[in-house]
Amino acid sequence: MAQIYERVALIGLGLIASSMAHGMRARGLAGEIVGTARSAETRDAAREIGFCDRVEDSAAEAVAGADLVVLCVPVGAMGAVAAEIAPHLKPGCVLSDVGSTKRAVMDAVAPHLPEGVHFIPAHPVAGTEQSGPHSGFAELFENRWLLMTPKGADPQALETYVEFWKGLGALVEQMEPDHHDLVLAVTSHAPHLIAYTMVGVADDLQRVTDSEVVTFSAAGFRDFTRIAASDPTMWRDVFLSNKEATLEILGRFTEELFALQRAIRQGDGDHLHAYFTRTRAIRRGIIEAGQDTDAPNFGRGR
Amino acid sequence: MAQIYERVALIGLGLIASSMAHGMRARGLAGEIVGTARSAETRDAAREIGFCDRVEDSAAEAVAGADLVVLCVPVGAMGAVAAEIAPHLKPGCVLSDVGSTKRAVMDAVAPHLPEGVHFIPAHPVAGTEQSGPHSGFAELFENRWLLMTPKGADPQALETYVEFWKGLGALVEQMEPDHHDLVLAVTSHAPHLIAYTMVGVADDLQRVTDSEVVTFSAAGFRDFTRIAASDPTMWRDVFLSNKEATLEILGRFTEELFALQRAIRQGDGDHLHAYFTRTRAIRRGIIEAGQDTDAPNFGRGR
Repeated sequence: MAQIYERVALIGLGLIASSMAHGMRARGLAGEIVGTARSAETRDAAREIGFCDRVEDSAAEAVAGADLVVLCVPVGAMGAVAAEIAPHLKPGCVLSDVGSTKRAVMDAVAPHLPEGVHFIPAHPVAGTEQSGPHSGFAELFENRWLLMTPKGADPQALETYVEFWKGLGALVEQMEPDHHDLVLAVTSHAPHLIAYTMVGVADDLQRVTDSEVVTFSAAGFRDFTRIAASDPTMWRDVFLSNKEATLEILGRFTEELFALQRAIRQGDGDHLHAYFTRTRAIRRGIIEAGQDTDAPNFGRGR
Repeated sequence: MAQIYERVALIGLGLIASSMAHGMRARGLAGEIVGTARSAETRDAAREIGFCDRVEDSAAEAVAGADLVVLCVPVGAMGAVAAEIAPHLKPGCVLSDVGSTKRAVMDAVAPHLPEGVHFIPAHPVAGTEQSGPHSGFAELFENRWLLMTPKGADPQALETYVEFWKGLGALVEQMEPDHHDLVLAVTSHAPHLIAYTMVGVADDLQRVTDSEVVTFSAAGFRDFTRIAASDPTMWRDVFLSNKEATLEILGRFTEELFALQRAIRQGDGDHLHAYFTRTRAIRRGIIEAGQDTDAPNFGRGR
């Protein structure tokens, strides 16, 4: 594949950034990959793994001369990083991010945007429960969605950036930022909070000893623990920055859960059976949409 | 491996029974495998697949002369099946089941037990989201827990039955039935109800079209849909037969969820971060206990 950007700067070097770097390398999408991270430990790890051509100690140094700058930090840190790098951005460059919420990132970054810099917010709907510079791999984005909220972006800059993500294997779709945040509240943010909650409940329960919960963890709970092992800082920021949509979905969730609890209490088997039958259809849809396989899970959570 | 029972009868021929049959065949644990199921369609499918030596049309015929009879029907049907087969059980045989709740099964089956039959309730903590006679495979129980609630069983009959499940690859543990039901409420029953609920909420939400929920299903939601695709009849019966423990855990869950919702509403990032950090430890415990791997999920739900 042909080179798309001469120099790409990645700010923050966790799972997403390291996967982007590996993917760019594998496909020759960038002439030079420059990275930086706030912690010296992360920068040293990145240097040792070697997925960047250069690792700089400051974000200002990292973005100098870059044609594409991607903010790969937790959503709550985007505004501060944007303020820090703004004076050092190359005129005409593309500034993007990989945050899981889009309205909050746009509001945080926009005030710092210099004239002539193209801001194109993006969200790769891809990840694993692992984090840090060691967790990346080149195939992370293959056949996964990359949602962009490019509102008013320069068409040429946008076209090139879409091409870049397609080069990493992603399927690219454009959306309004508020709609993005609502869709993700349903499909990702609320489920994560629920999984965190259930794992916390298990941890609290004194009569069922920790070791039993762990030892006899059945398929349902094991899947929840995987979700709940995701990066705490990233997820704290997701919930705080997508507060309204997440709380709305959780409100609906609680309402439904109460109805099912009442059905259990009253022994209303028909209600339960009808509900469980309906939820099967969504699973079929996901398999047909190619976002998962119907290979059985083998009860091992993978 | 040496043969353990001369004749084994399986009542109900879904995922668990067909996996037991494949496993017994692969390891030579049974001289003859006889099966039956309520629906003619399931019996015909089992005959076609051929995992039983004989498929009988009635449970009475299937259990005749069997040394081990395993009830592999939904928990709510155990009592009726026990009543039906009781007069036809061979004196001295072992009667068992594979139900996900144990107190309710023991209460339903015990009244029908003939003199001289050894009842040893059991629960293989293994499964996939698939169901029916086509979904079984010989390795399903390998390295998975088999929980027995043998309360007062004949030691010799018990020892042989433990050996049988070890032969299928399972790790066998004994428990009090009420304790079993509480542990499973935490690790399996409550998580399943929660997953069903979340998938139902997504299905209801009109502003986020079904196709978007399906298309952009992120890791969290995708895992929930897999859990929520499990057999509706089996799960209806699980909740109705483990009502108290499930409702207790769900009550605690709702309490915790409300506390986290309030933290989001109030912007209490420290509370969220501390909670999410704590839940990571449980995940580590599960990996160390060998009940899952730490291979990344690749965001594909498998």
